[in-house]
Amino acid sequence: MTATPDFMQQALAQAAQALFSSNPNPRVGCVIVARDGHTILGAGHTQQAGGAHAEVMALRDAAARNHDVQGATAYVTLEPCAHQGRTGPCCDALVAAGIGRVVAALEDPNPLVAGQGFARLRAAGVAVEVGPGAAQARELNIGFFSRMVRKTPWVRMKAAASLDGTTALANGESQWITSPQARADGHAWRAQACAVLTGIGTVLQDNPRLDVRGLDTPRQPHVVVVDSRLQTPLDAKLFVPGRSCFIYTASDSAAKTAALQALGAVVIHLPNAHGKVDLTAMLRDLGQRGINELHVEAGYQLNGSLLREALVDELLLYLAPKLLGSGRGICHIGPLTALADGPELAFHSVTNVGPDIRVLARFAGRADF
Amino acid sequence: MTATPDFMQQALAQAAQALFSSNPNPRVGCVIVARDGHTILGAGHTQQAGGAHAEVMALRDAAARNHDVQGATAYVTLEPCAHQGRTGPCCDALVAAGIGRVVAALEDPNPLVAGQGFARLRAAGVAVEVGPGAAQARELNIGFFSRMVRKTPWVRMKAAASLDGTTALANGESQWITSPQARADGHAWRAQACAVLTGIGTVLQDNPRLDVRGLDTPRQPHVVVVDSRLQTPLDAKLFVPGRSCFIYTASDSAAKTAALQALGAVVIHLPNAHGKVDLTAMLRDLGQRGINELHVEAGYQLNGSLLREALVDELLLYLAPKLLGSGRGICHIGPLTALADGPELAFHSVTNVGPDIRVLARFAGRADF
Repeated sequence: MTATPDFMQQALAQAAQALFSSNPNPRVGCVIVARDGHTILGAGHTQQAGGAHAEVMALRDAAARNHDVQGATAYVTLEPCAHQGRTGPCCDALVAAGIGRVVAALEDPNPLVAGQGFARLRAAGVAVEVGPGAAQARELNIGFFSRMVRKTPWVRMKAAASLDGTTALANGESQWITSPQARADGHAWRAQACAVLTGIGTVLQDNPRLDVRGLDTPRQPHVVVVDSRLQTPLDAKLFVPGRSCFIYTASDSAAKTAALQALGAVVIHLPNAHGKVDLTAMLRDLGQRGINELHVEAGYQLNGSLLREALVDELLLYLAPKLLGSGRGICHIGPLTALADGPELAFHSVTNVGPDIRVLARFAGRADF
Repeated sequence: MTATPDFMQQALAQAAQALFSSNPNPRVGCVIVARDGHTILGAGHTQQAGGAHAEVMALRDAAARNHDVQGATAYVTLEPCAHQGRTGPCCDALVAAGIGRVVAALEDPNPLVAGQGFARLRAAGVAVEVGPGAAQARELNIGFFSRMVRKTPWVRMKAAASLDGTTALANGESQWITSPQARADGHAWRAQACAVLTGIGTVLQDNPRLDVRGLDTPRQPHVVVVDSRLQTPLDAKLFVPGRSCFIYTASDSAAKTAALQALGAVVIHLPNAHGKVDLTAMLRDLGQRGINELHVEAGYQLNGSLLREALVDELLLYLAPKLLGSGRGICHIGPLTALADGPELAFHSVTNVGPDIRVLARFAGRADF
């Protein structure tokens, strides 16, 4: 019997169920198939960090149904772990249960562990096949792969504009250019991110909460503020309990730092030579803090800074079927002197969302890591 | 036997073959099906103006194959004509050939003739059914329907922009924001229009030909220039042989008028109270001149004027996967003071064209005539 794509697709569907919950762990799914090649004995996906991994969940599911997994095949969307973390190594659990064969979509991207899980399984006599569903499994965990390989998060910039690129009128009015359906969709993208990033301009002007609402999620993404001069008001709405607030600054004001820390914020001093926050260093720091996907909901200025420094991986753009003419645009770049100077992207998907469209476009070469 | 959608779909496919050729006549297709209900005896579509209509082409096709059409059914995408134009009435041709039944998608939209073709057929003993494929047949001839019902062309505004709505850099550079594939697609939209409209600003700045290139078409769309002060240079590239050039102006300069007329241009004096061209009157005049679809390729200023006067029916927008920041936008409207003041559209289709996307969006209510 060779691997059939169906079982890996089912394992990927399991993995997708962890979209809002497993961060910062990868979204992994597992389906255990009997020796007959068609009976599913158990299935599961990664739980919240600290909870069981997909393989253990699938084994538990099979046990709960009184299924014998002796000699069965486990389809898993990522290499089973071989190390003792907050949970025991999944490899050992699979071997102990008598699994005869593992079909995995991908090797673990962490260069320190890649391949060790497979080696451990093979050493225990388990047949291992790698590859089916690899592209989808990587896509589902693009942020985790980014953090493991590049050591920085996958940076997704979200914006909402009219068809002529206006995000706010000249008088500042911007609520709401897009539909309730598009805004709900935007909350789902927030929910799958490890953190939502904004700038002090947006905090001062809109005072947003930047949490996930109208959606069933077991965790709230952390919030990150680029605040060079520590102007975040102490009563800002983004101080939502149950999540971390990281404030990156170029200010060394001990008093302001202490006041923000008293609210539970983590204040990180990362100035560049121009008295602004060093955005590149910030992304490295966020990678170290376990941020896989960074969801940017910022304004014209910070969007421009991130784009000019080529730190953005993809653009998530909601376009409303309206024309608004002059006003505020998506990002402060230019004036350019040649068309070739603008950042190039490639359309990844274009989807109708209510009366609007959602465009996901990737900056050239950014996914090649 | 009832009408099957398949034959009407085939008649619609025939009609679509007239997309570039039949203007200003509607695009009509006809398929003649034998009494057995499945054998196609002949098919055809409207030829260039002055040539045969679809029904006659289908009858000729059947005759050329030595098929007897006695008692056959003709599927036709528009009511057969009952009047003597440059060709004889199609009703008479169908009756004379012995056609037993006509299935038509739509009544002729011309209020002066609507229903007369059907009445004439029924009077001759031909069974008539109306309705299958109606929406598609109307869509294919939206410009013809507009001219017949509203007495003005269907106005399609074409633009090409970056994802942030920039159509030209601050220094004027705009060639090319979109891909060769998108530009070729744009030529196909020009080819199906009766006329291409632009403004004097574009003529003076870009000196475009505004003809159809890189595409096999039997006719070139006419060209229309909004030129309030008759500034069109006598050596402008848009004076292409084989098509008409209509110049709408508010200037009463006899000398300039005479010079442009000497080049073959038709100069039409339609001033409004502000010394500009009366755009509403211009559209009525273009309707009288047989313009079904008016393809607008203009700049920021004229686009804005047409939009502010609510004269645009749909937007054909090519979006390149680029960000260009500050520069020239699609249209000069605003600054608005409320989001609701911007024109509302609805997405009609979004299509990948090479690396770009093509958005077709309709202004609210404009297709309801």
